[in-house]
Amino acid sequence: MRAVVLSSGGIDSTTAMAIAKSDSYEIYSLSFNYGQRHKIELEMAKKIAAFFGAVKHIIIDIDLRKFGGSALTADIAVPKDRHIEEMGSGIPVTYVPARNTIFLSFALAWAEVINADTIFIGVNALDYSGYPDCRPEYIRAFEEMANLATKAGAEGKIQFKIKTPLINMTKAEIIKKGSELDVDYSLTWSCYDPQPTMLPFSSELQTPNSKLIQCGRCDSCLLRKKGFKEAGIKDPTRYKE
Amino acid sequence: MRAVVLSSGGIDSTTAMAIAKSDSYEIYSLSFNYGQRHKIELEMAKKIAAFFGAVKHIIIDIDLRKFGGSALTADIAVPKDRHIEEMGSGIPVTYVPARNTIFLSFALAWAEVINADTIFIGVNALDYSGYPDCRPEYIRAFEEMANLATKAGAEGKIQFKIKTPLINMTKAEIIKKGSELDVDYSLTWSCYDPQPTMLPFSSELQTPNSKLIQCGRCDSCLLRKKGFKEAGIKDPTRYKE
Repeated sequence: MRAVVLSSGGIDSTTAMAIAKSDSYEIYSLSFNYGQRHKIELEMAKKIAAFFGAVKHIIIDIDLRKFGGSALTADIAVPKDRHIEEMGSGIPVTYVPARNTIFLSFALAWAEVINADTIFIGVNALDYSGYPDCRPEYIRAFEEMANLATKAGAEGKIQFKIKTPLINMTKAEIIKKGSELDVDYSLTWSCYDPQPTMLPFSSELQTPNSKLIQCGRCDSCLLRKKGFKEAGIKDPTRYKE
Repeated sequence: MRAVVLSSGGIDSTTAMAIAKSDSYEIYSLSFNYGQRHKIELEMAKKIAAFFGAVKHIIIDIDLRKFGGSALTADIAVPKDRHIEEMGSGIPVTYVPARNTIFLSFALAWAEVINADTIFIGVNALDYSGYPDCRPEYIRAFEEMANLATKAGAEGKIQFKIKTPLINMTKAEIIKKGSELDVDYSLTWSCYDPQPTMLPFSSELQTPNSKLIQCGRCDSCLLRKKGFKEAGIKDPTRYKE
């Protein structure tokens, strides 16, 4: 039983991978180098795939910067210190146009090639409801399309399923679930705006990536902190602030 | 009025672009370098975008070879000299898993960034019915998903439309339509298996691409030849055989 698991190196996709693993799927981990500022998440995704004994981990290069249009890929500032309530109202500037659709399309291609009928994606409709491509109705529409799009689906050999085990969980519930499944959250990366650590006697503040730490102030860091706090679980993350 | 037009440099997408142009859309031409054997089609797509006065032509690099699974991207031989009837039965080995889904996903991302509500794709359900992602039911499912996937769709600012003007046309009808719209089909490329020309006094048989000609025997060349013949229009293409 094989599953393609989309992995961003963050808490949600890592917990989704833990759930896939505990459901006895063989893991095919898929990440994307899409011109994001926070490229360090790809190093974490690689470590996480190894942690779960993934059969394979593929990183696909796609240059979404050619289109622009998001704070994560274009030259727009990442918002800081926003209130949690603020994040839920409207669609954030960190929205990347059609990102999950592109990611799921690649996952579908790989799933068809390796005869996997399941794709796991760690989307969440509660804590980060501003993203349209995290809603259940979107996921169902993608699934329906996927079964019409593919040779395996059209010939009735495979009925593709998009599994979203976290879709109705709060960040705290996700962290609790992952902790039950022994996820090592120190391997995960959330921050949209990685910061150099202030190492003494070093001028290489930006590199290597192992010297980067999470900012603690972007939406993603704030939600992560809040999640650990509400879960009553110690946050293993080093933040700059 | 803006439209993203998927362009492969072939007859169908070029005719779709001609139709978009005659419908008064501003053209945003989108092509993919996806590890295809017939990379020369990208040079043709560039010329075609210029021919139609496209506002912009973007080529996105995506390495589908990382997944394998198709004669167009993996190391599987391209079928030759098949009968037309044979092509219609079953899904051909040249099928690339989820290719149109990936292409349309990128088109959707770009459309959202530039505020275009229309995507043109030159799919055709008649002449090449073996591809599941060329069927009308697939296209409608993608369109529905697209309007749930995006910020612009979710906020009701844009109702995305996927236009498939060729979907019920034969290759001959497509060529007739394009000829009425003054398409220069000598700019287009169909062949899945480009061949070096036998230039005298030259050892560079493989490069540059301008020395490549279309094989005349793969499915795509055979359908092209048949189309021109049935349309009663002179085929401007140079074939090897």
